[in-house]
Amino acid sequence: MTDSAPAPFARVTRAWYVACASSELEDLPIARTLLGTPLVLFRGPDGKPAALLDRCAHRNVPLSLGRRVDGRLECGYHGWQYAEDGRCVKVPGLCGEAGKPARAVPRFAAMEQDAFVWVYASPDSDPTEGPFALPTLGDGSVEVRRVVEVESPLTMTLENALDVPHTAVLHRGLFRGGREPRRIKVRVTRTAGGLQAEYLGEARPEGLAAKILSPSGGVVTHFDRFILPSIAQVEYRLGMEAHFMVTSICTPLEDFRTRLHAVISFRTRLPGWLVKLFLNPVAMRIFRQDAVILKAQAGALRRWGGEHYSSTAIDVLGLQIARLLRLAETGETGPGSPEEWAREIDLEV
Amino acid sequence: MTDSAPAPFARVTRAWYVACASSELEDLPIARTLLGTPLVLFRGPDGKPAALLDRCAHRNVPLSLGRRVDGRLECGYHGWQYAEDGRCVKVPGLCGEAGKPARAVPRFAAMEQDAFVWVYASPDSDPTEGPFALPTLGDGSVEVRRVVEVESPLTMTLENALDVPHTAVLHRGLFRGGREPRRIKVRVTRTAGGLQAEYLGEARPEGLAAKILSPSGGVVTHFDRFILPSIAQVEYRLGMEAHFMVTSICTPLEDFRTRLHAVISFRTRLPGWLVKLFLNPVAMRIFRQDAVILKAQAGALRRWGGEHYSSTAIDVLGLQIARLLRLAETGETGPGSPEEWAREIDLEV
Amino acid sequence: MTDSAPAPFARVTRAWYVACASSELEDLPIARTLLGTPLVLFRGPDGKPAALLDRCAHRNVPLSLGRRVDGRLECGYHGWQYAEDGRCVKVPGLCGEAGKPARAVPRFAAMEQDAFVWVYASPDSDPTEGPFALPTLGDGSVEVRRVVEVESPLTMTLENALDVPHTAVLHRGLFRGGREPRRIKVRVTRTAGGLQAEYLGEARPEGLAAKILSPSGGVVTHFDRFILPSIAQVEYRLGMEAHFMVTSICTPLEDFRTRLHAVISFRTRLPGWLVKLFLNPVAMRIFRQDAVILKAQAGALRRWGGEHYSSTAIDVLGLQIARLLRLAETGETGPGSPEEWAREIDLEV
Repeated sequence: MTDSAPAPFARVTRAWYVACASSELEDLPIARTLLGTPLVLFRGPDGKPAALLDRCAHRNVPLSLGRRVDGRLECGYHGWQYAEDGRCVKVPGLCGEAGKPARAVPRFAAMEQDAFVWVYASPDSDPTEGPFALPTLGDGSVEVRRVVEVESPLTMTLENALDVPHTAVLHRGLFRGGREPRRIKVRVTRTAGGLQAEYLGEARPEGLAAKILSPSGGVVTHFDRFILPSIAQVEYRLGMEAHFMVTSICTPLEDFRTRLHAVISFRTRLPGWLVKLFLNPVAMRIFRQDAVILKAQAGALRRWGGEHYSSTAIDVLGLQIARLLRLAETGETGPGSPEEWAREIDLEV
Repeated sequence: MTDSAPAPFARVTRAWYVACASSELEDLPIARTLLGTPLVLFRGPDGKPAALLDRCAHRNVPLSLGRRVDGRLECGYHGWQYAEDGRCVKVPGLCGEAGKPARAVPRFAAMEQDAFVWVYASPDSDPTEGPFALPTLGDGSVEVRRVVEVESPLTMTLENALDVPHTAVLHRGLFRGGREPRRIKVRVTRTAGGLQAEYLGEARPEGLAAKILSPSGGVVTHFDRFILPSIAQVEYRLGMEAHFMVTSICTPLEDFRTRLHAVISFRTRLPGWLVKLFLNPVAMRIFRQDAVILKAQAGALRRWGGEHYSSTAIDVLGLQIARLLRLAETGETGPGSPEEWAREIDLEV
Repeated sequence: MTDSAPAPFARVTRAWYVACASSELEDLPIARTLLGTPLVLFRGPDGKPAALLDRCAHRNVPLSLGRRVDGRLECGYHGWQYAEDGRCVKVPGLCGEAGKPARAVPRFAAMEQDAFVWVYASPDSDPTEGPFALPTLGDGSVEVRRVVEVESPLTMTLENALDVPHTAVLHRGLFRGGREPRRIKVRVTRTAGGLQAEYLGEARPEGLAAKILSPSGGVVTHFDRFILPSIAQVEYRLGMEAHFMVTSICTPLEDFRTRLHAVISFRTRLPGWLVKLFLNPVAMRIFRQDAVILKAQAGALRRWGGEHYSSTAIDVLGLQIARLLRLAETGETGPGSPEEWAREIDLEV
């Protein structure tokens, strides 16, 4: 997208991102920022979503201040109208043809899937592959969606979403922490779409959230996954009793601002409405605690002009996520050598 | 004035600008910014307005924080006193003469005319010509004044004030719009003081404002004028019945902030108080709508680091205003070749 | 401390500064900024104050968001723990030793004296000399402490605290001013720690504050002192009756923000509680008036990109303070040639 200065963060533009929930895009055009670029979203004549650069070709006024007329987007200043492909189709007052190429605005591929509006971050491109498809936990599963905006870069947000050690400290009392630590193993592998960390031998977590989800305990299966370029997924199984998946679809709005669309899916013995009743406040508290610490971390990054990190083996995925994003920025999206990425780590939880 | 960086906007300093309404300048000094330079205005011993750089020569505290003592301006910190020509005339506590040249502050020519305080934007200059003189519509005319501050550069504000096509869209329902468009001609000419656009064959405008001003309709005479460096004037005649002139005297406070002193003069068959009653809310709504869109346009200019305009023939005066201002900035204020500026344009209104 | 850009202001780092009052540092760690560098203060296992760079070595989150555990400082994100010397002593979840050198954070010498927590502004240093020791006015003296934060550089704040001429203007009616000025002498000398100005032949000051302190008048002894790098001291004696000392211990938080810990000591014939009752509102009003003017002066400094000062002989100490600070920044803290600094000045007060 548009920025001539050297990027302090990887900006993967050949990718789909969630721009908004489907329900947010109705008759009025709406403004969204993606990787620092202002976009306007609107629904075309057939109701399908369209995305254009949010800048009228005429006097540069944001098109999101305008309105929708017969599935076209009308600028609020002089009334120039644009089709969903960015062509100018009307210039009120002008005697002559409206649709000259210099009057078009860049358009971004847009589509609806899983009740999200997805936008492809490279202008005037026709991607051959679609966006990430949300998994389902099968019959009887329940889904909750939450949106959080954090004043933090994409990489920090992804690392946080997939980091285990901080949960016992930052979220003390909410799930992990409060008992003697136990040594387990973590196996990291490179997947087709990113990275996976499998936690082996993990004890049933303590704390309020776990008690709600699995009253009787059981064997834990736990996977953390990073899916390029912006998705963090945590999957937990507590015996046969409870299955729990949090898919955090991140959207890098600007270098220091990330929107996180969390899709929380679960299957338990309890009725869904009851779990939601307890889960919602706990989940929102966790998100808020993370948002506070991420903002402070991002503030330090600005203050010191970069990261001054001292990492250890138990920073399981963070550094590899950053590396994969840098590779993806320049187009190297292939899986690389899986052996190069594979690790096994000792961790006390 | 003072700025070493290359100016993104023309800054015409050899010119008079309105600093404030006469009634705003009473016994207390007041602060005003002109082309980015902080000024202090106060009334000298004879009550005439004076303008100095708003920075005490001693410790640089703004003189506008001080007070007026016997027609002199006293700094609020150490009490240094300045005459209306910028000379320091008193340094409390100092044994010896106060009035050394290094203790003077730059002064700006100031005068009162048409109930405005005008300031000349070049320091320590004695301009040979006076400010723009407000025209009058003759006996029976009524005048209304309004002040609007817009977060927008001078050029954008002037273009907006003299632009016809946006009125049917941005001000939809207030004057133009709502019927089939009609093709008319616009004749642009270079005048001694700037530019003039004459609208030929214009129909009586629709909408609320026109109905108030001219209940029975009639032939329309319509001139838009730009008067260097900062005045936009719209003159309308609806038959013999109504005569209407809006003179927008703009003051470029900073690159992205312009103050607009609008003088609305009119003569109609209705009593003045009645016209004002209806006109005031309509005029203020128009100004507010323009202010919102100009701020958004200025925001785009900042975001994109410059204008990315695609203009058409019906952008009647905007580009020429910008060109004249650039010429005037370097001192080329002559009329140039009138033929070079003359154009005739087709327009649907 | 850390800043690669050329400093517009002297930053004397080989010196002690007050970080907070002793009473502000209890069980929770607190954040303080010193010369632009964020510090975290906490009490070690023995209750003695410690100061570290406020940035966790792991993910750079401010340590001041954490908590104190057994006299160690725990980061609020992943729970890394630091000893008072900056060593990392615990990494929760890590199998292996915590205390690697790369996981340490810079520490700053800290100590408690005169009920202040003092911090030495160079990291990882062990200063051989202690901080400035507060003088006492002897038996029967009373002390009042006040904290003011001004949006102003250290040099401006120090000049203001030791400037006599502004008191009759900015603080008009509060102590000086309101009668015919009288010519006195000021003798400036270089002291071991800085500068001293002695006022010779000063009349008993007029105004409310003086009347409260010395109802019957008397010979005035008046010293203004600058003590490197950040202390301004005003000592007044009105006959045998009243002794008055204001020690303003300044802390340069950032280039444009200074915290001033004022210690007001006095001995009068009146009971201490009665003097405090009258003195407090007067002192706070003076501090507020100074804060307003210093902020305006600092704003001018920013606006104009530097000082544009025109000084006179009666700017007694300001320029010399700035010069001494520039010398001290590069390490030249010796007394220099006393003759070079000595001056005698005529002043009307």
